[in-house]
Amino acid sequence: MPKPSSVTVLGLGPMGRALAGAFLDAGLRTTVWNRTPGRDLDLKERGAISAASAADAVAASPLTVVCVVNYDAADTFLRTEPVTDALKGRTVVNFSSDSPDRARRAADWAAEHGIRYLDGAIMTPITTIGTPHAVFLHSGPEDLYAEHRPALDALGGTHTHLGADSGRAAAYDIALLDIFWTATAGYVHALALARAEGITARELAPFAQGIGAILPPLFAEWADDIDEGTYSGEGNPLTSSVSSMAHIVHTAEAHGIDSAVLRAAEGQARRAVGLGHGTDGITRLTELLGRR
Amino acid sequence: MPKPSSVTVLGLGPMGRALAGAFLDAGLRTTVWNRTPGRDLDLKERGAISAASAADAVAASPLTVVCVVNYDAADTFLRTEPVTDALKGRTVVNFSSDSPDRARRAADWAAEHGIRYLDGAIMTPITTIGTPHAVFLHSGPEDLYAEHRPALDALGGTHTHLGADSGRAAAYDIALLDIFWTATAGYVHALALARAEGITARELAPFAQGIGAILPPLFAEWADDIDEGTYSGEGNPLTSSVSSMAHIVHTAEAHGIDSAVLRAAEGQARRAVGLGHGTDGITRLTELLGRR
Repeated sequence: MPKPSSVTVLGLGPMGRALAGAFLDAGLRTTVWNRTPGRDLDLKERGAISAASAADAVAASPLTVVCVVNYDAADTFLRTEPVTDALKGRTVVNFSSDSPDRARRAADWAAEHGIRYLDGAIMTPITTIGTPHAVFLHSGPEDLYAEHRPALDALGGTHTHLGADSGRAAAYDIALLDIFWTATAGYVHALALARAEGITARELAPFAQGIGAILPPLFAEWADDIDEGTYSGEGNPLTSSVSSMAHIVHTAEAHGIDSAVLRAAEGQARRAVGLGHGTDGITRLTELLGRR
Repeated sequence: MPKPSSVTVLGLGPMGRALAGAFLDAGLRTTVWNRTPGRDLDLKERGAISAASAADAVAASPLTVVCVVNYDAADTFLRTEPVTDALKGRTVVNFSSDSPDRARRAADWAAEHGIRYLDGAIMTPITTIGTPHAVFLHSGPEDLYAEHRPALDALGGTHTHLGADSGRAAAYDIALLDIFWTATAGYVHALALARAEGITARELAPFAQGIGAILPPLFAEWADDIDEGTYSGEGNPLTSSVSSMAHIVHTAEAHGIDSAVLRAAEGQARRAVGLGHGTDGITRLTELLGRR
């Protein structure tokens, strides 16, 4: 397999710039373009080629990496005649974050226009790009992934191909971001509550990190429990979870703190108890939240 | 300081039994009692003394450890004349989980009746009791904590005294459980979403563990950001968070999945954007959720 030689990056927000920087560091001929001009100055100093238009940019390389805020933003330039024409026979890897449904529709659009298409998701912060800590997910045709893997490897980190369904990387992305943002919402609420109780964020942080550290092993344990449909409440039945959540909501609201997030979680757990699942664990919700 | 010789445990749920077992393993004369009889059989085989009443139980030891579901449950036996009388001059460490306010009221009640009182919280699962992995928090008079520290050390793990305010251990407990239960609600929702997308819990688990692993360092970074009132959105402004949350809610609800938890988080983030904090990070919510 030949060493990858050139790549185009469309979208020069903080993540797009990090991707372009990693390609440059790996010695690839890197062409860049951004809808709003002026974002490529430091990249040009590092050797990037600045394209005058998106169509010129994609024409410069066999592989175009797209990284914008979502698919609406990507479509504003991808779904224009000059760019669609220029992409014919070339490959797009779209790292823009959106729903699995949008990723599948983008793959359909690409197929209709003779564009080779992979959907990707970046699961780690900007600072990890180009380092072993980056985590990339990919989905779409396996042979296309294999063909461009050498170029993608220039981004560092680990790359996982999740299957031919173009929506699969976005589905993982969405599910993982769900964990991230919900946990984050819990952390900022906990710090609001701690503050009202005279505890600083720094005082709570070491213990919060301790809670964070017990989550990964629980995630693995619960995955087995959920796939087997056990929903075990041994040691932690839903009746206890509900009681614990109620104490938290009560304490926070007594301080005047908006507790809509945990209140919603308490409601879901309480409903599960009401449906007769009080001795099950909170994992029962996995089955219940989506029940038709 | 003399080696601790005897202790009483009131409440023999899974956690109370683990505590009694750890005291027995450490060689302490351990007296046990539970409101519902028959929970002490294996503990008796291991050498525990089964008391006929809560009053008899507390009279048997200078230190009584209470571990029931909440303070209402604890009060059903603590606030009875025989028990209150028997506790006079003795020490109670209450590991029952409840609000800081309830812990403070319990301390006031104890002071009125000449009972020495410490409030405690157990931050780790039952399986950690008696091992180095257990984490215990304590609050109340420092000298009382120092006096009973040798007996508490029999429970294993790390013990931290958080201050003289009796409500402080409960305040930490509540804030940390807030993180735990909210993150958990996010995980079960993510798995419901993954399932609807044809992804098993076991397939998602390694990546979910990756998300779990990035939380502790972020918790520490954000603690500084919050205590300094920076609320920095560099690399991750609230406008992006809102967009990401909206994709998740959209995808989940399109599968018919109850998304009330993240919907509430999205609402809080969107309100922060509406108040002009769009370029701040989600840490801004710490200040906003409790604003008067």
